[in-house]
Amino acid sequence: MPEPVLLKLGGSVLTKKGGPGIVRQENLALISREIAAHRKVPLLIVHGAGSCGHPEAHRFRLMEGLTVENREGVFVTHRSVSKLNSIVVAALREKGIEAIGIHPLDSCYAENGRIVSMECRHIREMLSRGIVPVLHGDVVMDGMKGATIVSGDQLVSYLGHALRFGRIGLATDVPGVLAGDDVIPVLTPQTIGQVRIGSSRHTDVTGGMEGKIRELVELARAGTCSEIFHVEQTGAFLDGRPHGGTVVRGG
Amino acid sequence: MPEPVLLKLGGSVLTKKGGPGIVRQENLALISREIAAHRKVPLLIVHGAGSCGHPEAHRFRLMEGLTVENREGVFVTHRSVSKLNSIVVAALREKGIEAIGIHPLDSCYAENGRIVSMECRHIREMLSRGIVPVLHGDVVMDGMKGATIVSGDQLVSYLGHALRFGRIGLATDVPGVLAGDDVIPVLTPQTIGQVRIGSSRHTDVTGGMEGKIRELVELARAGTCSEIFHVEQTGAFLDGRPHGGTVVRGG
Repeated sequence: MPEPVLLKLGGSVLTKKGGPGIVRQENLALISREIAAHRKVPLLIVHGAGSCGHPEAHRFRLMEGLTVENREGVFVTHRSVSKLNSIVVAALREKGIEAIGIHPLDSCYAENGRIVSMECRHIREMLSRGIVPVLHGDVVMDGMKGATIVSGDQLVSYLGHALRFGRIGLATDVPGVLAGDDVIPVLTPQTIGQVRIGSSRHTDVTGGMEGKIRELVELARAGTCSEIFHVEQTGAFLDGRPHGGTVVRGG
Repeated sequence: MPEPVLLKLGGSVLTKKGGPGIVRQENLALISREIAAHRKVPLLIVHGAGSCGHPEAHRFRLMEGLTVENREGVFVTHRSVSKLNSIVVAALREKGIEAIGIHPLDSCYAENGRIVSMECRHIREMLSRGIVPVLHGDVVMDGMKGATIVSGDQLVSYLGHALRFGRIGLATDVPGVLAGDDVIPVLTPQTIGQVRIGSSRHTDVTGGMEGKIRELVELARAGTCSEIFHVEQTGAFLDGRPHGGTVVRGG
């Protein structure tokens, strides 16, 4: 079996963050095509929520803790991000990829905003059977706050470590981590303090590029390398070819 | 907080097993009304798949093990039972119950047909927050066979034990466990061998009344009592009143 790959699809790659949950069909088609062309690679996909879920999470003030008044927000927020997940899964299946949506609300438990417990053995089994699990940023029950928002990036960090992925790629709407106009080719826990990281085009409740880098540097510290590249370079990443993006690795 | 209750809704209570996934709306309305009238009780609901999922599981021969040829059956079967779950959740929410669907495919891992691992801490958190998790019989990844069908009854057994429920009720389309025309009022691991158990009106791949009893006797052996009653007695069970059904308990 080829080495399993964890591929993160940025929320802003999949939806127009300015608009009300509008899916960027051209990117979804491009991604599905590239994945279909690499169907022998065991693949786990995590996608961000993009413009889905964030408005609902804000409206119900989910980040401030769960009460009787706002607990409806768990259902409403989850429904919104699940809808995006269904669209992603459908696009992949249309290209013959055996994709199945897996919802973090159903499989995770967090404390103070961080996943502390998550069923993972079924995901490993799917990978070994040619099924592509598709997870997503989601609202998750939290033992301290009642509920919390877990970003796709936090899922990458958790699953990258728990399932010991050797190859992790993050497809974004920028060419990599930028310092000014230039892509930083390599980031390590040691160099991260020396560069001023440009933000991704849009920011959201889950932290944008800075939040992403924080998660990946933690992963690198624990020995797992990851790569950030423009979505158009997804095929290059899956091939193992140069993609002009950023590699985050241990020092 | 009142003692949490685990309520199982039999598949044949929710759907007409003869037909192609037809929902028994009158039963669903009755159940939703009764649960809404007892909304102070922290409640976990598990429902059977009824006539949803079984035809798909048969068609793809999921019980014979997962191959490249039939692995599509995981998605198709899961989609079918998830649709029934959405209908149940919507009916409960319409009555103001803060119900949320939780899919076993997303949260369980089985070996040789039995759940060996399942995230449960988020379910406990939901119960403490007034959210009603609604689980269902589902296809689940299996480390031996690739995939397996986990019945609602197996979920009752697993969750009853894992979350240490003190009160477990199973709403069915018969008044209780029948020996001939009479309800057996009490079953124990000791008496189970002495009675000839009548089957529930319909049987299915997950074992009908016999499969149900096997799960509940195991639960009783481990110290957890459960009650089987006609769906029209759901209110009586939630009240703690006599329901004319069967109690399965330790000897």
